[in-house]
Amino acid sequence: MDINILLFSNFETLDVFGPVEIFGKLQGYRLRYLSMEGGIVSSSQGTKVITEKLETAAFKDILLVPGGQGTRLLVNDDTFIEKLKEVAVKSMYCLTVCTGSALLAKTDLLNGKKATSNKRAFDWVSSINTKVDWQPYDRWVVDGKFYTSSGVSAGIDMALGFVADRAGMDKAKNIASSIEYVWNSNRFEKMLT
Amino acid sequence: MDINILLFSNFETLDVFGPVEIFGKLQGYRLRYLSMEGGIVSSSQGTKVITEKLETAAFKDILLVPGGQGTRLLVNDDTFIEKLKEVAVKSMYCLTVCTGSALLAKTDLLNGKKATSNKRAFDWVSSINTKVDWQPYDRWVVDGKFYTSSGVSAGIDMALGFVADRAGMDKAKNIASSIEYVWNSNRFEKMLT
Repeated sequence: MDINILLFSNFETLDVFGPVEIFGKLQGYRLRYLSMEGGIVSSSQGTKVITEKLETAAFKDILLVPGGQGTRLLVNDDTFIEKLKEVAVKSMYCLTVCTGSALLAKTDLLNGKKATSNKRAFDWVSSINTKVDWQPYDRWVVDGKFYTSSGVSAGIDMALGFVADRAGMDKAKNIASSIEYVWNSNRFEKMLT
Repeated sequence: MDINILLFSNFETLDVFGPVEIFGKLQGYRLRYLSMEGGIVSSSQGTKVITEKLETAAFKDILLVPGGQGTRLLVNDDTFIEKLKEVAVKSMYCLTVCTGSALLAKTDLLNGKKATSNKRAFDWVSSINTKVDWQPYDRWVVDGKFYTSSGVSAGIDMALGFVADRAGMDKAKNIASSIEYVWNSNRFEKMLT
Protein backbone atom coordinates (compact mmCIF):
# COMPACT_ATOMS: atom_id res chain seq x y z
CA MET A 1 0.00 0.00 0.00
CA ASP A 2 1.28 3.46 -0.91
CA ILE A 3 0.66 6.37 1.41
CA ASN A 4 0.73 9.37 -0.91
CA ILE A 5 1.51 12.54 0.99
CA LEU A 6 0.47 15.67 -0.88
CA LEU A 7 2.82 18.51 0.03
CA PHE A 8 2.60 22.20 -0.85
CA SER A 9 4.42 25.38 0.08
CA ASN A 10 3.90 26.33 3.75
CA PHE A 11 2.45 23.02 4.92
CA GLU A 12 2.50 22.57 8.71
CA THR A 13 5.47 20.37 9.63
CA LEU A 14 3.94 18.13 12.28
CA ASP A 15 0.72 17.64 10.26
CA VAL A 16 2.88 15.54 7.96
CA PHE A 17 5.58 14.05 10.14
CA GLY A 18 3.35 13.00 13.01
CA PRO A 19 1.38 10.59 10.78
CA VAL A 20 4.60 9.69 8.89
CA GLU A 21 6.14 8.52 12.17
CA ILE A 22 3.12 6.27 12.81
CA PHE A 23 2.78 4.90 9.27
CA GLY A 24 6.54 4.35 9.07
CA LYS A 25 6.14 1.65 11.72
CA LEU A 26 3.76 -0.40 9.53
CA GLN A 27 4.99 -3.27 7.42
CA GLY A 28 3.94 -3.21 3.77
CA TYR A 29 3.24 0.50 3.54
CA ARG A 30 5.39 2.83 1.40
CA LEU A 31 5.52 6.54 2.11
CA ARG A 32 5.68 8.81 -0.93
CA TYR A 33 6.13 12.58 -0.84
CA LEU A 34 4.36 14.27 -3.74
CA SER A 35 3.59 17.79 -4.91
CA MET A 36 1.99 19.44 -7.94
CA GLU A 37 5.32 20.39 -9.50
CA GLY A 38 7.68 17.96 -7.75
CA GLY A 39 11.04 19.11 -6.39
CA ILE A 40 11.73 20.90 -3.13
CA VAL A 41 8.76 21.90 -1.00
CA SER A 42 9.22 23.95 2.17
CA SER A 43 7.07 23.78 5.30
CA SER A 44 6.04 26.81 7.38
CA GLN A 45 8.89 25.84 9.72
CA GLY A 46 11.46 25.92 6.88
CA THR A 47 11.85 22.16 6.43
CA LYS A 48 12.83 21.58 2.80
CA VAL A 49 11.54 18.20 1.61
CA ILE A 50 12.23 16.50 -1.73
CA THR A 51 9.02 15.52 -3.52
CA GLU A 52 8.04 13.63 -6.65
CA LYS A 53 5.67 15.10 -9.21
CA LEU A 54 2.04 14.20 -8.54
CA GLU A 55 1.67 12.42 -11.89
CA THR A 56 4.14 9.71 -10.89
CA ALA A 57 1.70 8.21 -8.36
CA ALA A 58 -1.28 5.95 -9.10
CA PHE A 59 -3.30 7.22 -6.09
CA LYS A 60 -5.13 3.94 -5.67
CA ASP A 61 -4.24 3.52 -1.98
CA ILE A 62 -4.01 6.17 0.72
CA LEU A 63 -3.91 9.95 0.35
CA LEU A 64 -2.70 12.21 3.19
CA VAL A 65 -3.31 15.97 2.98
CA PRO A 66 -1.76 18.18 5.69
CA GLY A 67 -2.88 21.64 6.73
CA GLY A 68 -0.93 24.80 7.36
CA GLN A 69 -0.77 28.40 6.21
CA GLY A 70 -0.43 27.22 2.59
CA THR A 71 -4.06 26.05 2.58
CA ARG A 72 -5.28 29.66 2.83
CA LEU A 73 -4.09 30.30 -0.73
CA LEU A 74 -4.72 26.83 -2.15
CA VAL A 75 -8.37 26.79 -1.20
CA ASN A 76 -8.85 29.39 -3.95
CA ASP A 77 -6.58 27.67 -6.48
CA ASP A 78 -9.02 25.94 -8.84
CA THR A 79 -6.30 23.92 -10.60
CA PHE A 80 -5.07 22.51 -7.28
CA ILE A 81 -8.58 21.76 -6.00
CA GLU A 82 -9.54 19.97 -9.24
CA LYS A 83 -6.40 17.87 -9.07
CA LEU A 84 -6.99 17.11 -5.41
CA LYS A 85 -10.52 16.00 -6.23
CA GLU A 86 -9.24 13.73 -8.99
CA VAL A 87 -6.69 11.97 -6.75
CA ALA A 88 -9.06 11.84 -3.75
CA VAL A 89 -11.70 10.10 -5.88
CA LYS A 90 -9.14 7.53 -7.02
CA SER A 91 -7.76 6.86 -3.53
CA MET A 92 -9.07 4.04 -1.33
CA TYR A 93 -8.74 6.25 1.75
CA CYS A 94 -8.31 10.03 2.13
CA LEU A 95 -6.85 11.44 5.32
CA THR A 96 -6.65 15.15 6.12
CA VAL A 97 -5.02 16.92 9.06
CA CYS A 98 -5.96 20.35 10.41
CA THR A 99 -6.83 22.85 7.66
CA GLY A 100 -6.12 20.13 5.08
CA SER A 101 -9.81 19.42 5.70
CA ALA A 102 -10.66 22.80 4.13
CA LEU A 103 -8.96 21.72 0.90
CA LEU A 104 -10.84 18.42 0.80
CA ALA A 105 -14.12 20.18 1.68
CA LYS A 106 -13.61 22.52 -1.26
CA THR A 107 -13.68 19.53 -3.66
CA ASP A 108 -17.31 18.85 -2.56
CA LEU A 109 -16.37 15.23 -1.78
CA LEU A 110 -17.22 15.78 1.90
CA ASN A 111 -20.71 17.13 1.18
CA GLY A 112 -23.21 15.45 3.53
CA LYS A 113 -20.39 13.70 5.37
CA LYS A 114 -19.12 14.11 8.91
CA ALA A 115 -15.71 15.78 9.11
CA THR A 116 -13.58 17.90 11.43
CA SER A 117 -10.64 20.31 11.44
CA ASN A 118 -8.46 22.48 13.68
CA LYS A 119 -10.60 23.96 16.46
CA ARG A 120 -8.75 27.30 16.21
CA ALA A 121 -9.52 27.59 12.51
CA PHE A 122 -12.94 25.98 12.71
CA ASP A 123 -14.98 29.01 11.65
CA TRP A 124 -12.84 29.54 8.57
CA VAL A 125 -12.73 25.87 7.58
CA SER A 126 -16.45 25.30 8.07
CA SER A 127 -17.22 28.44 6.05
CA ILE A 128 -15.43 26.94 3.05
CA ASN A 129 -18.26 24.47 2.56
CA THR A 130 -21.40 24.54 4.70
CA LYS A 131 -22.72 21.30 3.14
CA VAL A 132 -20.22 19.32 5.22
CA ASP A 133 -21.51 17.97 8.54
CA TRP A 134 -18.71 19.60 10.57
CA GLN A 135 -17.99 18.03 13.98
CA PRO A 136 -16.69 20.58 16.51
CA TYR A 137 -15.73 18.22 19.38
CA ASP A 138 -13.73 15.44 17.79
CA ARG A 139 -9.99 14.92 17.48
CA TRP A 140 -10.72 12.92 14.36
CA VAL A 141 -13.75 11.74 12.41
CA VAL A 142 -14.24 8.77 10.09
CA ASP A 143 -16.97 8.80 7.44
CA GLY A 144 -16.61 6.11 4.81
CA LYS A 145 -13.20 6.43 3.21
CA PHE A 146 -12.60 9.90 4.66
CA TYR A 147 -10.57 10.45 7.83
CA THR A 148 -10.36 14.08 8.93
CA SER A 149 -8.55 15.35 12.00
CA SER A 150 -8.35 18.37 14.23
CA GLY A 151 -5.19 20.49 14.52
CA VAL A 152 -1.59 19.36 14.09
CA SER A 153 -0.93 16.77 16.81
CA ALA A 154 -4.46 15.39 16.39
CA GLY A 155 -3.11 14.02 13.11
CA ILE A 156 -1.01 11.59 15.17
CA ASP A 157 -4.13 10.46 17.03
CA MET A 158 -5.99 10.01 13.74
CA ALA A 159 -3.11 8.06 12.21
CA LEU A 160 -3.21 5.71 15.20
CA GLY A 161 -6.98 5.41 14.73
CA PHE A 162 -6.42 4.54 11.07
CA VAL A 163 -3.89 1.87 12.08
CA ALA A 164 -6.36 0.50 14.65
CA ASP A 165 -9.05 0.24 11.93
CA ARG A 166 -6.75 -1.49 9.43
CA ALA A 167 -4.37 -3.52 11.58
CA GLY A 168 -6.08 -3.77 14.95
CA MET A 169 -6.10 -1.89 18.23
CA ASP A 170 -3.11 -3.83 19.62
CA LYS A 171 -0.94 -2.73 16.71
CA ALA A 172 -1.97 0.90 17.17
CA LYS A 173 -1.29 0.76 20.91
CA ASN A 174 2.08 -0.90 20.31
CA ILE A 175 3.13 1.82 17.89
CA ALA A 176 2.02 4.56 20.30
CA SER A 177 3.97 2.90 23.09
CA SER A 178 7.06 2.40 20.92
CA ILE A 179 7.29 6.15 20.35
CA GLU A 180 6.29 6.90 23.97
CA TYR A 181 3.21 8.70 22.71
CA VAL A 182 0.13 9.09 24.88
CA TRP A 183 -2.68 8.43 22.42
CA ASN A 184 -5.52 10.88 22.98
CA SER A 185 -9.08 9.69 22.97
CA ASN A 186 -11.37 10.91 20.31
CA ARG A 187 -13.29 13.74 21.98
CA PHE A 188 -12.07 16.75 23.90
CA GLU A 189 -14.65 19.27 25.00
CA LYS A 190 -11.99 20.81 27.25
CA MET A 191 -9.87 21.99 24.35
CA LEU A 192 -12.63 24.35 23.27
CA THR A 193 -12.85 26.31 26.51
CA MET B 1 19.03 32.47 18.07
CA ASP B 2 19.83 29.64 15.68
CA ILE B 3 18.54 26.16 16.39
CA ASN B 4 21.04 23.94 14.60
CA ILE B 5 19.55 20.54 13.84
CA LEU B 6 22.18 17.89 13.18
CA LEU B 7 20.79 15.34 10.72
CA PHE B 8 22.29 12.03 9.61
CA SER B 9 21.17 9.07 7.54
CA ASN B 10 18.32 7.13 9.20
CA PHE B 11 17.40 9.69 11.81
CA GLU B 12 13.99 9.15 13.38
CA THR B 13 11.47 11.48 11.72
CA LEU B 14 9.47 12.67 14.72
CA ASP B 15 12.61 13.13 16.87
CA VAL B 16 13.31 16.09 14.61
CA PHE B 17 9.94 17.38 13.51
CA GLY B 18 8.25 17.25 16.89
CA PRO B 19 10.69 19.80 18.36
CA VAL B 20 10.75 21.67 15.02
CA GLU B 21 6.99 22.18 15.28
CA ILE B 22 7.41 23.66 18.77
CA PHE B 23 10.46 25.83 18.01
CA GLY B 24 8.86 27.01 14.78
CA LYS B 25 6.26 28.85 16.89
CA LEU B 26 8.89 30.97 18.66
CA GLN B 27 9.73 34.46 17.50
CA GLY B 28 13.42 35.20 16.96
CA TYR B 29 14.56 31.61 16.50
CA ARG B 30 15.85 30.32 13.15
CA LEU B 31 15.77 26.61 12.34
CA ARG B 32 18.76 25.29 10.39
CA TYR B 33 19.10 21.75 9.04
CA LEU B 34 22.72 20.62 9.00
CA SER B 35 24.68 17.46 8.27
CA MET B 36 28.33 16.43 8.04
CA GLU B 37 28.37 16.51 4.23
CA GLY B 38 25.37 18.73 3.51
CA GLY B 39 22.86 17.84 0.78
CA ILE B 40 19.97 15.40 1.01
CA VAL B 41 19.61 13.38 4.21
CA SER B 42 16.95 10.68 4.53
CA SER B 43 15.13 9.65 7.70
CA SER B 44 14.25 6.05 8.62
CA GLN B 45 10.77 6.84 7.32
CA GLY B 46 12.12 7.94 3.92
CA THR B 47 11.73 11.69 4.40
CA LYS B 48 14.38 13.37 2.23
CA VAL B 49 15.45 16.68 3.78
CA ILE B 50 17.80 19.29 2.30
CA THR B 51 20.64 20.16 4.67
CA GLU B 52 23.52 22.61 4.78
CA LYS B 53 27.07 21.51 5.47
CA LEU B 54 27.96 21.56 9.16
CA GLU B 55 30.79 24.07 8.62
CA THR B 56 28.34 26.79 7.55
CA ALA B 57 26.97 27.15 11.10
CA ALA B 58 28.57 29.00 14.01
CA PHE B 59 27.05 26.68 16.65
CA LYS B 60 26.94 29.37 19.29
CA ASP B 61 23.25 28.96 20.08
CA ILE B 62 21.20 25.76 20.27
CA LEU B 63 22.11 22.27 19.02
CA LEU B 64 19.46 19.58 18.50
CA VAL B 65 20.53 15.96 17.96
CA PRO B 66 17.82 13.41 17.10
CA GLY B 67 17.98 9.66 17.57
CA GLY B 68 17.07 6.80 15.28
CA GLN B 69 18.61 3.72 13.73
CA GLY B 70 21.44 5.83 12.30
CA THR B 71 22.87 6.35 15.79
CA ARG B 72 23.81 2.66 16.02
CA LEU B 73 26.49 3.19 13.40
CA LEU B 74 27.44 6.76 14.29
CA VAL B 75 28.25 5.94 17.90
CA ASN B 76 31.31 4.11 16.54
CA ASP B 77 32.22 6.79 13.99
CA ASP B 78 35.12 8.65 15.64
CA THR B 79 35.11 11.49 13.10
CA PHE B 80 31.41 12.16 13.69
CA ILE B 81 31.74 11.95 17.49
CA GLU B 82 34.72 14.35 17.51
CA LYS B 83 32.81 16.83 15.36
CA LEU B 84 29.73 16.47 17.55
CA LYS B 85 31.86 17.15 20.63
CA GLU B 86 33.32 20.26 18.99
CA VAL B 87 29.93 21.75 18.10
CA ALA B 88 28.34 20.70 21.42
CA VAL B 89 31.11 22.48 23.35
CA LYS B 90 30.54 25.66 21.32
CA SER B 91 26.73 25.60 21.69
CA MET B 92 24.94 27.48 24.45
CA TYR B 93 22.42 24.63 24.80
CA CYS B 94 22.53 21.01 23.59
CA LEU B 95 19.30 19.07 23.19
CA THR B 96 19.12 15.37 22.36
CA VAL B 97 16.10 13.19 21.63
CA CYS B 98 15.88 9.41 22.09
CA THR B 99 19.13 7.62 21.11
CA GLY B 100 20.64 10.97 20.17
CA SER B 101 21.62 10.89 23.85
CA ALA B 102 23.93 7.95 23.08
CA LEU B 103 25.84 10.11 20.58
CA LEU B 104 26.22 12.95 23.07
CA ALA B 105 27.20 10.51 25.84
CA LYS B 106 29.94 9.14 23.60
CA THR B 107 31.59 12.60 23.49
CA ASP B 108 32.12 12.36 27.31
CA LEU B 109 30.42 15.75 27.74
CA LEU B 110 27.65 14.13 29.80
CA ASN B 111 30.07 12.46 32.24
CA GLY B 112 28.85 13.00 35.81
CA LYS B 113 25.69 14.66 34.53
CA LYS B 114 22.07 13.55 34.71
CA ALA B 115 20.64 12.46 31.35
CA THR B 116 18.01 10.21 29.84
CA SER B 117 17.09 8.40 26.64
CA ASN B 118 14.50 6.10 25.03
CA LYS B 119 13.26 3.61 27.62
CA ARG B 120 13.19 0.80 25.03
CA ALA B 121 16.84 1.37 24.14
CA PHE B 122 17.92 2.29 27.64
CA ASP B 123 20.26 -0.65 28.23
CA TRP B 124 22.09 0.02 24.99
CA VAL B 125 22.31 3.79 25.46
CA SER B 126 23.46 3.58 29.08
CA SER B 127 26.10 0.98 28.12
CA ILE B 128 27.69 3.51 25.75
CA ASN B 129 28.98 5.52 28.69
CA THR B 130 28.52 4.36 32.28
CA LYS B 131 29.94 7.62 33.68
CA VAL B 132 26.66 9.38 32.83
CA ASP B 133 24.09 9.57 35.64
CA TRP B 134 21.32 7.95 33.56
CA GLN B 135 17.75 8.67 34.70
CA PRO B 136 15.37 5.81 33.88
CA TYR B 137 12.04 7.44 34.80
CA ASP B 138 12.08 10.84 33.14
CA ARG B 139 10.61 12.03 29.89
CA TRP B 140 13.33 14.64 29.81
CA VAL B 141 16.19 15.77 32.01
CA VAL B 142 17.96 19.13 32.29
CA ASP B 143 21.52 19.34 33.63
CA GLY B 144 23.23 22.64 32.98
CA LYS B 145 23.17 23.33 29.26
CA PHE B 146 22.19 19.76 28.39
CA TYR B 147 18.58 18.75 27.72
CA THR B 148 18.14 15.03 27.02
CA SER B 149 14.84 13.31 26.32
CA SER B 150 13.29 9.89 26.22
CA GLY B 151 11.97 8.31 23.01
CA VAL B 152 10.55 10.10 19.98
CA SER B 153 7.43 11.96 21.15
CA ALA B 154 9.16 12.80 24.46
CA GLY B 155 11.22 15.19 22.32
CA ILE B 156 8.06 17.30 21.94
CA ASP B 157 7.63 17.37 25.72
CA MET B 158 11.29 18.36 26.17
CA ALA B 159 11.02 21.09 23.54
CA LEU B 160 8.04 22.52 25.43
CA GLY B 161 10.11 22.30 28.64
CA PHE B 162 12.92 24.18 26.92
CA VAL B 163 10.47 26.87 25.81
CA ALA B 164 9.09 27.10 29.36
CA ASP B 165 12.63 27.62 30.71
CA ARG B 166 13.53 30.30 28.14
CA ALA B 167 10.23 32.07 27.43
CA GLY B 168 7.98 31.13 30.35
CA MET B 169 5.40 28.48 31.17
CA ASP B 170 2.54 30.44 29.61
CA LYS B 171 4.32 30.52 26.24
CA ALA B 172 4.96 26.78 26.39
CA LYS B 173 1.36 26.04 27.31
CA ASN B 174 0.10 28.34 24.56
CA ILE B 175 2.21 26.56 21.95
CA ALA B 176 1.04 23.14 23.17
CA SER B 177 -2.56 24.31 23.01
CA SER B 178 -2.12 25.87 19.55
CA ILE B 179 -1.10 22.49 18.12
CA GLU B 180 -3.71 20.66 20.25
CA TYR B 181 -0.93 18.77 21.99
CA VAL B 182 -1.41 17.32 25.46
CA TRP B 183 1.91 18.12 27.14
CA ASN B 184 3.09 15.16 29.19
CA SER B 185 4.46 15.72 32.63
CA ASN B 186 8.04 14.88 33.26
CA ARG B 187 7.93 11.43 34.87
CA PHE B 188 6.17 8.27 33.76
CA GLU B 189 6.78 5.17 35.81
CA LYS B 190 3.90 3.51 33.95
CA MET B 191 5.70 3.53 30.62
CA LEU B 192 8.31 1.15 31.99
CA THR B 193 5.94 -1.64 32.98
